[in-house]
Amino acid sequence: MKITALAGGVGGAKLAHGLAHVLPPEDLTIIVNTGDDFEHLGLSICPDLDTVCYTLAGLANSETGWGRAGETWNTIANIERLGGPAWFRLGDQDIATHLERTRRLKEGQSLSSITREFCQAWGIQPTVLPMTDAPVRTMVNTNEGELAFQEYFVHRRCEPIVKGFRFDGVTEAKPAPGVREALDTADAVIFCPSNPWVSIDPILSVVKKITKPVIAVSPIIGGKAVKGPAAKMYTELGIEPSALAVAKHYRTTLAGFVLDTTDRESEAQIIALSIKTQVTDTLMNHLTERVRLANDVLHFIGSL
Amino acid sequence: MKITALAGGVGGAKLAHGLAHVLPPEDLTIIVNTGDDFEHLGLSICPDLDTVCYTLAGLANSETGWGRAGETWNTIANIERLGGPAWFRLGDQDIATHLERTRRLKEGQSLSSITREFCQAWGIQPTVLPMTDAPVRTMVNTNEGELAFQEYFVHRRCEPIVKGFRFDGVTEAKPAPGVREALDTADAVIFCPSNPWVSIDPILSVVKKITKPVIAVSPIIGGKAVKGPAAKMYTELGIEPSALAVAKHYRTTLAGFVLDTTDRESEAQIIALSIKTQVTDTLMNHLTERVRLANDVLHFIGSL
Repeated sequence: MKITALAGGVGGAKLAHGLAHVLPPEDLTIIVNTGDDFEHLGLSICPDLDTVCYTLAGLANSETGWGRAGETWNTIANIERLGGPAWFRLGDQDIATHLERTRRLKEGQSLSSITREFCQAWGIQPTVLPMTDAPVRTMVNTNEGELAFQEYFVHRRCEPIVKGFRFDGVTEAKPAPGVREALDTADAVIFCPSNPWVSIDPILSVVKKITKPVIAVSPIIGGKAVKGPAAKMYTELGIEPSALAVAKHYRTTLAGFVLDTTDRESEAQIIALSIKTQVTDTLMNHLTERVRLANDVLHFIGSL
Repeated sequence: MKITALAGGVGGAKLAHGLAHVLPPEDLTIIVNTGDDFEHLGLSICPDLDTVCYTLAGLANSETGWGRAGETWNTIANIERLGGPAWFRLGDQDIATHLERTRRLKEGQSLSSITREFCQAWGIQPTVLPMTDAPVRTMVNTNEGELAFQEYFVHRRCEPIVKGFRFDGVTEAKPAPGVREALDTADAVIFCPSNPWVSIDPILSVVKKITKPVIAVSPIIGGKAVKGPAAKMYTELGIEPSALAVAKHYRTTLAGFVLDTTDRESEAQIIALSIKTQVTDTLMNHLTERVRLANDVLHFIGSL
């Protein structure tokens, strides 16, 4: 079975990790959100791409879910001493990724080509693609005005009240080489348990149509996001955060929906939207849980 | 006594360190070579400025003479893993200096202003000035063509045969704010034991004239440079490397010359050039030796 998965950061990376353990590498493509990317300290930083790659390579910090295992913080500590901006916590190993990526981008190499070569260097076998090589930037409309995503997410710790989103640059952005093909040749497309508003929607805004069956895994469990501001965003946008809300969010595109056993009572309402469902444990702290969920999702797809 | 010292990297930094322990901070200005500066991995790197500042701040690696004490190398190791350029060994703490300096330069702050603020952050009390805020780049003419200084010095390990030097950008470069005044108001100007060709000459090419008495400390001891390629450069340029050669190099400008006890037999020839001399121990491995040499040099200046 050929699978193309859409992923944001931590949650998406975990399911991608599970899928990578189950599927032959040539049958798995992961398309990653780049709407969170930003320039900071002169570095081109791609948080979701890096989280996905570090996770697939076994380099990720399993406690935080982001950044590198065994990380040191000597650069950022010294930037802070010099009075520089230290609110975005860049580890020493992680900075290497940003420095080398920035160097290559300035030389004219595309983000997708850089990502391919980084994956080779890190021993990652499935195909990892940025959604686009063009700059698309998620802008968060808040009660304090429009904020660039990392300004909202990290610097302001998601405190401003969300009123909406805009994906700057999306009208000019083409899908990165391989993205269209991966979507069109897959047997199914999986929306990983990533933030619908700021991880999956930016990808959809670039790729536009998906013709293959789509299966989404809910990032909301028991009304809460496992990590990140998805639930808070739903609430502030006037929608009760729930697996049902996520299913409705993707409604027109979905063939199937995977929700947590905690949310079993929502299943009937989701089925009523003409979406097939799978109820299973969706928390993925350890690799065994990632592999089990990947198997559950693939089995579910096979049954559709 | 008001002193302005001209310095390159390691040797200059050591004498500056000694002078900083002896003179009140308001009486010491150190003008540092920026001809070695270069852009690497998108970072603006100023090796001599950093060596002088790290040394004055007590942050320098006392074994290597350059870089930071207690340094870690996680960024460069990971750049290497990604296939990036790793020939210039940037430590994790050191990278903070380059990242924050580059960020500020891009915001339009001048190198001299950045250096002043970094010195404050590092607790450095004497005034440290880059020779200029403009880009001046030492180019080394070799048997393999013209090479940028760090390409010759670090990447090619000084292997190409030197035929001459050119200080690119020097005709447009003005001395940094404070440099002219520091030279004109000093009681004496000290040429630290730095490479005459590529540390002191670039500064002289920018500041042009010095009206106050100049005292140079020989960087050549027993026909060898304590560190770096000075002796090799003299040989390749057809001059026998010696304290005498250094005195002749600076001849027209020198009021006094400090040479090592090892080179005592050259003293008469230097006096014959109408240059006053001081013979003393000039090796400065430890702070006590730096302070002693600083005191010797100041005493010599007082005697002139």
